[in-house]
Amino acid sequence: MPFISIEGIDGSGKTEQVRLLVERLRNAGQTVLQTKEPDGGRLGMEVRAILVAPDRQLTPAEQLLLVSAARFDHVRSVIRPALANGKWVISDRFIDSTYAFQVAVSDVDLHQLFRSTCEIVVGATLPDLTIILDLPLEVALGRRGLRRDGVLDPAEATRDFAAIRHGLLVMAREAPERCHVVDANQTVDAVACDIWRIVENLL
Amino acid sequence: MPFISIEGIDGSGKTEQVRLLVERLRNAGQTVLQTKEPDGGRLGMEVRAILVAPDRQLTPAEQLLLVSAARFDHVRSVIRPALANGKWVISDRFIDSTYAFQVAVSDVDLHQLFRSTCEIVVGATLPDLTIILDLPLEVALGRRGLRRDGVLDPAEATRDFAAIRHGLLVMAREAPERCHVVDANQTVDAVACDIWRIVENLL
Repeated sequence: MPFISIEGIDGSGKTEQVRLLVERLRNAGQTVLQTKEPDGGRLGMEVRAILVAPDRQLTPAEQLLLVSAARFDHVRSVIRPALANGKWVISDRFIDSTYAFQVAVSDVDLHQLFRSTCEIVVGATLPDLTIILDLPLEVALGRRGLRRDGVLDPAEATRDFAAIRHGLLVMAREAPERCHVVDANQTVDAVACDIWRIVENLL
Repeated sequence: MPFISIEGIDGSGKTEQVRLLVERLRNAGQTVLQTKEPDGGRLGMEVRAILVAPDRQLTPAEQLLLVSAARFDHVRSVIRPALANGKWVISDRFIDSTYAFQVAVSDVDLHQLFRSTCEIVVGATLPDLTIILDLPLEVALGRRGLRRDGVLDPAEATRDFAAIRHGLLVMAREAPERCHVVDANQTVDAVACDIWRIVENLL
């Protein structure tokens, strides 16, 4: 059965679009497993607890290794069994987030390590389709600023968002047969419609 | 300052030999940081708690990624600062344990992933010297059997010990300028003496 991942920077409306896509697939009669990363499995929940500790400053390399361990467990314990049982799998984030949030922002070159981990961790279980919700920087920053009451260093936020957005678009360019970029600077319904037009080819 | 790691299978007397070596270096006027893996840093303690959970069956790949994340933190937060401050560093286990306990026993080929992680995680902070305490299988099994009141599946234990011992000896063969194999099937004093003969060249 198809395995779909949905990616996007904060403010891109990813969570809502995952919900709408799962609903639409179920209405179309499909059995769907909705999951997410990094905390889609037991190891992922433990790793997430380490990542989000408030006084924590982990390096991108440490984060990459931790989320890759979590992903190995997620793929073998959750995703592969669901696919084998005839379910669609929709994951809120997958490898492209790791590239964008860890590899693309790292001072140390993590590309070779990323490739080696993907080979072992993902193997043949690459998504059939990846939706990348793209948003101009100023729109993303505006949405995030509103959501977080504006407590944000604008320069730092702009730099991070630019690097992460760039990372996602790099992945899209490198795997055009898998990744589809969707303009998230539209109404929720219009974005959902664009996503559905891509996904329904898999039905 | 020199960085030394000490490796060996269960029952090889590693912990006691680390203690004796640190004592001897201090008696020789050196400042020494004694540390260990996987739990030599904060991330290592968190990773160890995940690894030793009693109902846990993590794959070698998951273990490799978790201990490598912990090692990155250990190297940058503990080992490098100590070396920069003029201290000797003696670590009870380091990369060779990862090769022996995860790579050498894995059904999936983890060699490339191991190399990629070492390159990023260890970088230039490779030990100047690694002592590998070697023990014939039957002696190791006997010592471990005694220590654990014989509650051990002999076939399983033999297979694991053989793979891990083989892994350590592979590392010794591949890095002969760094790794020194010491016969641990002697009295504690004789082993300590053999280790000291190798270490004192660094003084």
